[in-house]
Amino acid sequence: MSTVTEDLPAREAVKVLAAQDLPGLIVVDPRNRPLTVLAGTQLLRLALPAYCQDDPALARVVDEAAADLILDGLGERTVADLLPRTRPELPAVDAAATVLEVASVMARSNVPLVAVVAKDKTMIGAITLDGLLDRMLGT
Amino acid sequence: MSTVTEDLPAREAVKVLAAQDLPGLIVVDPRNRPLTVLAGTQLLRLALPAYCQDDPALARVVDEAAADLILDGLGERTVADLLPRTRPELPAVDAAATVLEVASVMARSNVPLVAVVAKDKTMIGAITLDGLLDRMLGT
Repeated sequence: MSTVTEDLPAREAVKVLAAQDLPGLIVVDPRNRPLTVLAGTQLLRLALPAYCQDDPALARVVDEAAADLILDGLGERTVADLLPRTRPELPAVDAAATVLEVASVMARSNVPLVAVVAKDKTMIGAITLDGLLDRMLGT
Repeated sequence: MSTVTEDLPAREAVKVLAAQDLPGLIVVDPRNRPLTVLAGTQLLRLALPAYCQDDPALARVVDEAAADLILDGLGERTVADLLPRTRPELPAVDAAATVLEVASVMARSNVPLVAVVAKDKTMIGAITLDGLLDRMLGT
């Protein structure tokens, strides 16, 4: 299950994201209750040096090997340091959610990953956009 | 290559998205030049009935089999009908782009899919977030 905790170094979080085939990371508290979902592109945006985001053309003049810049740029920051101050609504459903409900939550969050939580709010699974579409279309 | 044209029925576009493992669709013109990239979650949002987006809890009261609602709701609309009026900046790079440049373009667009275009602006490939991270981290 692709969860990370807030105290995990951001560099490690990027590696977790890369090592799995999921489109984002679910951030959980120490009791395994989802706090927020970080889309992979959000993580990328938070990790990139500011000058790259302002003008991608500038990134071209940086040497190719400078991709390491991204990991180095994360420095000692943790996942908590990367999270926006105002956290977006947690995309989560309970185990009884219908396909349409999952689709609605996913569409609202704009992140292709929804946490499934038990009654005590602990995480019991995750649903990706791919999984949802497969379920919807029977593919 | 996961491209669709503007005249493709939206129902078919959802099936193309489901049939592949890419996180979105690249919309091309008749000469195979990318026009815009639709993230899977964007497609979902555009396809869902409005009442589901306003309040996911309402979606729960709809019968499970009503997931078909989504496809039926698309009706006769085409991909062009689904695209927002003001199209966001096309996430595209040329074949000489550096890893950092691809990351910058992807972070700006917030879509984990970037088109790679030739000098004549025709599409020659696509880079996903997964592919980018694998390249960056050597995984």
